[in-house]
Amino acid sequence: MEARQRMESNIVLAIDIGGTTVKGSVFADGSELSPELAAPTFEGSLGAFDAVLAVVSDLARTAHAHGYEPTAIGVGTPGLVDAPFGLVRYAANLKWTDFPLASRLEEHFSLPTTIDHDARTAARAEMALRPALRDFVFIPIGTGISAAIVTAGRTVTGARGQAGELGHVTTIPDGRACSCGRLGCLETYASARAVLSGYVEAGGTANSAADVARLVGKDPLADQAWSTAVNALATGITTLTAIFDPAEIVIGGGLSAAGPVLLNPLRDEVRGLLGWRDAPAISASRAGPRAGLLGAALLGNTP
Amino acid sequence: MEARQRMESNIVLAIDIGGTTVKGSVFADGSELSPELAAPTFEGSLGAFDAVLAVVSDLARTAHAHGYEPTAIGVGTPGLVDAPFGLVRYAANLKWTDFPLASRLEEHFSLPTTIDHDARTAARAEMALRPALRDFVFIPIGTGISAAIVTAGRTVTGARGQAGELGHVTTIPDGRACSCGRLGCLETYASARAVLSGYVEAGGTANSAADVARLVGKDPLADQAWSTAVNALATGITTLTAIFDPAEIVIGGGLSAAGPVLLNPLRDEVRGLLGWRDAPAISASRAGPRAGLLGAALLGNTP
Repeated sequence: MEARQRMESNIVLAIDIGGTTVKGSVFADGSELSPELAAPTFEGSLGAFDAVLAVVSDLARTAHAHGYEPTAIGVGTPGLVDAPFGLVRYAANLKWTDFPLASRLEEHFSLPTTIDHDARTAARAEMALRPALRDFVFIPIGTGISAAIVTAGRTVTGARGQAGELGHVTTIPDGRACSCGRLGCLETYASARAVLSGYVEAGGTANSAADVARLVGKDPLADQAWSTAVNALATGITTLTAIFDPAEIVIGGGLSAAGPVLLNPLRDEVRGLLGWRDAPAISASRAGPRAGLLGAALLGNTP
Repeated sequence: MEARQRMESNIVLAIDIGGTTVKGSVFADGSELSPELAAPTFEGSLGAFDAVLAVVSDLARTAHAHGYEPTAIGVGTPGLVDAPFGLVRYAANLKWTDFPLASRLEEHFSLPTTIDHDARTAARAEMALRPALRDFVFIPIGTGISAAIVTAGRTVTGARGQAGELGHVTTIPDGRACSCGRLGCLETYASARAVLSGYVEAGGTANSAADVARLVGKDPLADQAWSTAVNALATGITTLTAIFDPAEIVIGGGLSAAGPVLLNPLRDEVRGLLGWRDAPAISASRAGPRAGLLGAALLGNTP
């Protein structure tokens, strides 16, 4: 046991906080020790931080069971994240305002904790897999939508670490009401949650956006919900392209699992909207739905 | 004369290409030798490059008249600019497509020539004046609208040097027709040209956006044209803020001369639209309408 611990330098408890689940896994120098764990973000009267605590406690037990002493915690979280200060300034879905996530975890587990915005965390995993990708935007689409912008190989964090709130870009003026209090935000049209609720409100029956994706081409109501999402997303990508000139747009998060059903119409729409300039390549995340967790593991590594 | 030449290391012919005029001035190590020169961008059958040649020729004569031999040409130009290759890939207003601006000027004048996007060129002047400004967006508003994004002290150029086309971000879906071929672009609502044409089409009489600005609060037609521009601009700034989290938005170009008439309602609108997060500061360019020219002079300096 002792020898093993000395051989491995980074034993990271990696956490990926989503709108509906908190996922976690233990990484020993980048290798996963056991299958990932998950807990619902909210359950009964328990809130998002309770779910985080439960998952991290389980991960610590897993590490110990394998004979390892954890060295760090790495966390990807949605919201307006001030990474250097370890603060989540605002996360509507998690009901957090100026929440000192890093220091709260450090108090509980006595482990150095690094947090970052979930999209930037996931983009780290993508960059680790594709080092030649130097100008791209990573867009995770799940309960919400955000973006990690990488320009000349550097991630844009912004003046207060709050860059990347693509989900709250107005796409349809005076459109649907968003949890942020504004109208017409991109994520009210193109998030996995929006796809599902759009379909259900129109009279369809489904349990997830993945169900809706499977019905595209077979059910006109699914086609309608899907094309609403694709149109809105294409507008957001067009905006990002005009402003940033990325070589590639990488779609991540749950919705990216739809593959060609999402990517093909999206490429067509973006090409049409960007007639005045070349369109960037559009691809699905290579790191896949686990990009956030893999990136969180990288966050916890000491260089 | 000889001694003087040896003392000064950078004698730069600086050019700022706009939609309606080409401006130029000679800078000897950052000090201007004489008042700036200007020529109309288009005159009769003469095109934008003819105007550039005429101004650069005049500047070279001015330098010689002061006993200096020019050492470089620095040019700020609108459009999709690939600065490392010295190419203007596309500039609708100038009618240039894949135009090798740098090499054409080098052929004519046998001087090393550096070009860059006009907004990034102007942002260089702003950064030289305010070195503490590390996360900001510089938005020149004139015949068109563009943006230079500076994040962590670095200017974003994009994969092909084409970042910053804020003027072609869709602001009103299916809105006004833009010179780029699309509908509803920001610059069809908020450029100086759009303010003037909006006012004139509504029945007002004016010769420039500055005239319209002076009538705000006195003429309901001017109020209407102005608030259309302010609304559209506020939407664009809100989008930039959500994506980039800048500490400050700096408005430059001709329209920035309107001062509080522009800045006050713009600050109010942006604050309202960004209720879910802090709004960035909004200020007028300190380098003023000459930012482009001052930045072009910096471009020509050998470090």
